Amino acid sequence: MGSSEINADTAVRALLSADLRGVDSHGIARLTGYVRLWEAARVNANPVIKIVHETPSTAVVDGDKGLGLVVGPAAMQIAIDKAKNVGTGWVSVKNSNHFGIAGFHAMMALQHDMIGIAMTNASATVAPTFSKERLLGTNPIAVVIPAGNEQPFVADFATTTAANGKLEILQRKNMDAPHGWVQNKDGQPSTDVNELKKGGAMLPLGGDKEHGSHKGYMLGSIVDIFSAVLSGANYGPWVPPFPAYLPIPENMPGEGIGHFFGAMRIDAFRPAAEFKQHMDAWIQRFKSADTADGFDKVIIPGEPEREMEKERMKNGIQLLSSVVNELNELALKLKLTAL
Amino acid sequence: MGSSEINADTAVRALLSADLRGVDSHGIARLTGYVRLWEAARVNANPVIKIVHETPSTAVVDGDKGLGLVVGPAAMQIAIDKAKNVGTGWVSVKNSNHFGIAGFHAMMALQHDMIGIAMTNASATVAPTFSKERLLGTNPIAVVIPAGNEQPFVADFATTTAANGKLEILQRKNMDAPHGWVQNKDGQPSTDVNELKKGGAMLPLGGDKEHGSHKGYMLGSIVDIFSAVLSGANYGPWVPPFPAYLPIPENMPGEGIGHFFGAMRIDAFRPAAEFKQHMDAWIQRFKSADTADGFDKVIIPGEPEREMEKERMKNGIQLLSSVVNELNELALKLKLTAL
Repeated sequence: MGSSEINADTAVRALLSADLRGVDSHGIARLTGYVRLWEAARVNANPVIKIVHETPSTAVVDGDKGLGLVVGPAAMQIAIDKAKNVGTGWVSVKNSNHFGIAGFHAMMALQHDMIGIAMTNASATVAPTFSKERLLGTNPIAVVIPAGNEQPFVADFATTTAANGKLEILQRKNMDAPHGWVQNKDGQPSTDVNELKKGGAMLPLGGDKEHGSHKGYMLGSIVDIFSAVLSGANYGPWVPPFPAYLPIPENMPGEGIGHFFGAMRIDAFRPAAEFKQHMDAWIQRFKSADTADGFDKVIIPGEPEREMEKERMKNGIQLLSSVVNELNELALKLKLTAL
Repeated sequence: MGSSEINADTAVRALLSADLRGVDSHGIARLTGYVRLWEAARVNANPVIKIVHETPSTAVVDGDKGLGLVVGPAAMQIAIDKAKNVGTGWVSVKNSNHFGIAGFHAMMALQHDMIGIAMTNASATVAPTFSKERLLGTNPIAVVIPAGNEQPFVADFATTTAANGKLEILQRKNMDAPHGWVQNKDGQPSTDVNELKKGGAMLPLGGDKEHGSHKGYMLGSIVDIFSAVLSGANYGPWVPPFPAYLPIPENMPGEGIGHFFGAMRIDAFRPAAEFKQHMDAWIQRFKSADTADGFDKVIIPGEPEREMEKERMKNGIQLLSSVVNELNELALKLKLTAL
């Protein structure tokens, strides 16, 4: 595709991180989709990523239509560099594309003894509370916090009841969705996993008003505003869709999709060793909590993904045959060696 | 109580803001509880609030056992001052007490064309996913964002399915709680609104794993860590309780309760006028969304509280007779004029 080796390497690392951590929906299975966006001239394989506005602790970055997998790490690095100088760094990004898993970018902060934050908006699949229209994406948030002897705290979650990947699994199995995951095109509760194809919508975390869906809606909105209204990207229903065959929204108010990154140096607050000792105590206390019947243990955010990574580093990553077929078609088209 | 006039004034403003906005559980009804904490020597009426560590964009503040209603605004002001200098300001606070509604502190940023953020931990009433122990407080988050012609975006929410105040309303009405709000002492789902008095717990936003309670648990954890592990306050099950008659936890790892504040100057990202124009467009688009049958409109975060404030500024605030009685007892005890 004409991408530089270093950019291709960064993108591969981001995809591989998703597959290793068990987030198969955001790994190599997306490659075909990225290539289609490039074919539609919606992705620039050689972006000139640049700061368009900055202060000592902030920046707005123009991603130059680059792949989010490449723009994200560049912007996160700017946040980290600013944190080195003044304690924290905050970067809002416009003119970007899908950036893979949020946690990958946020985790860049760990090696610097910093807290890392990453979020992104996405095309509208989610209906705010009381709406029958889709106005928000699944808008994930990652917050990554270093520990000492314990493994780091890695939270990375969509601001919906369930991630889209979980719906897709139920679709393949021909199963119903639990209540609170989706609604139909009239805004009524539904358990049909295919509602999105019929004009329905996913629901914000909480599911319905009685269970706090207005809080999920607020979280998704905050991600949208920090990522796109602060930077000058598209927001709400104007965020361009990932599938290249879908039309781009009319009258877009900004450029591309938006992300938001943060880095906070631990020792900008207290000595890192002291903080880590207390993070270890926090983690150990939660890990050792008495559990409800039928459950082994309280899970520390990031644990399941880390266990999956260990297993897959040893035994490899099993790809769906449909993904392998797609990759082989891609290899043929781009004149590469097939799998 | 010997508090300075300026501190008393700040505290009253915070309480009044809660009552005006309809958050009665965090208004003047709390005064008796604050006085009891002072009687138990757990609140210092004349705190020397000071920065114990700082960088250009961060600070840790020691609240000197002051009332959170006083410590909060002081710490938020430090965040705002740092944002003036370097774009953003982030302040973690230890050795504080209950700070009222999070939104009050965050809203201080608005007059400076800044985004305001406020959060606090609280004593443990919430069980993480799979736990039967209470390890987190209701740990609210407020994010306040300026707009232009439209009113500001004011999100302020507990990271639980439902706020404690809503449980108390159902208790008074002798009604059941919806599924997903509480669990019993064995960690099993329950609809009994009195579970908290029987060793049960509130549930994180999401309610159960299938509906994303692990996301609410992550949010509550992030608030706890930012507020207390960063600052040196107590965290998790060690946060001291609000009611003065409850014992303080043993082996507390920090000082008092913790808060976290942030201020981000809009023009540290893009010109404020440009941002506000897009915020107006964002708000107008969401406001005018097609609604599901039975619902009038999609609500912009902060709207209901603003309408309540308008109504109460005109017609006054109706207090429960039990609250009036408590205030009169307090007046008698402190030799003040009764209501």
